[in-house]
Amino acid sequence: MDALKQMIHTQGHVVNEHVLKVDSFLNHQVDPALMQQIGAEFARLFKDEHITKVLTVESSGIAPAMMAALCLSVPLVFARKNKSLTVHNDLFVTKIVSYTKGEQSEIYVSKKFLSPDDNVLVIDDFLANGQVALGLLDIITQAGASLAGIGIVIEKSFQPGRQLLIDKGIRVESLAQIQSLQNGTVTFL
Amino acid sequence: MDALKQMIHTQGHVVNEHVLKVDSFLNHQVDPALMQQIGAEFARLFKDEHITKVLTVESSGIAPAMMAALCLSVPLVFARKNKSLTVHNDLFVTKIVSYTKGEQSEIYVSKKFLSPDDNVLVIDDFLANGQVALGLLDIITQAGASLAGIGIVIEKSFQPGRQLLIDKGIRVESLAQIQSLQNGTVTFL
Repeated sequence: MDALKQMIHTQGHVVNEHVLKVDSFLNHQVDPALMQQIGAEFARLFKDEHITKVLTVESSGIAPAMMAALCLSVPLVFARKNKSLTVHNDLFVTKIVSYTKGEQSEIYVSKKFLSPDDNVLVIDDFLANGQVALGLLDIITQAGASLAGIGIVIEKSFQPGRQLLIDKGIRVESLAQIQSLQNGTVTFL
Repeated sequence: MDALKQMIHTQGHVVNEHVLKVDSFLNHQVDPALMQQIGAEFARLFKDEHITKVLTVESSGIAPAMMAALCLSVPLVFARKNKSLTVHNDLFVTKIVSYTKGEQSEIYVSKKFLSPDDNVLVIDDFLANGQVALGLLDIITQAGASLAGIGIVIEKSFQPGRQLLIDKGIRVESLAQIQSLQNGTVTFL
């Protein structure tokens, strides 16, 4: 997606060979017009999949996922983090390991909002190690729902997430695929 | 705003006389078409204010705030929570007291995204005690920016937040004002 790649080139900041900072248009400050284009592109890519819900996780996934849900005319559900989960009865809960932070956390979705009738499009801002996507897939599986595919805004293609998902037979659509962040430069695939 | 009030009546769940659950359309599952109407209404209310940025706090504020920012053609900034803030140099940080949870937390905005040139519209999903709004106001003040007003999706008018903000001379626009949640029923002002 050219507008996104252009934005990454002009506004992205390569912190090191693993980290690209996009807080000026995606995950702290957000460019709403770009989010609208991103949502429209996800909707175009998955328009024949009979999506019933878009699923993401708070917080950075919400903006692009909501625009996709708006374009597809379906509800958005965002999984929540960090709750002290004493009672699990009415929630689908899964654990996510963060390699970057070296910690484990729980995310959850209320059982009210996913059912076996649902065909779910997962949207997230980044794909790196794929642990968040796998966590959302686990929640979808617990609900007995179907996963139609995964839409990613920025994929770090030099990390193993994409292959991990592809190996499970999952359709992955990434709007920008980054081959490398070496030498302080973004190189797209 | 009639569509919102209608949704609160049909989908809202009165947990007790202080708590209204709206997780089926606002803060867990999200109705994108309703968010679009909400965003358009905020944009209409503040259209003459020369807004340069919309500011909210993660996570539940993001969806309505992004639609308002889209309609106003300005960037959205969402304040972040829960970071272990060892270095504060490049951040505006403020403390927020949650009466419901009885705890204090920090929220922050990168100094890159607010400046004295900004005229900011604050958007949030709920107004109750007003502590989040005051925290965002503190961040705006630290930045030397101006606050144009505060747009709230659901105001619990029986709690002191609105008066606290009005007493500071702040314009508060709430799309649904709830007078009472007594007897398991939502009564609008």
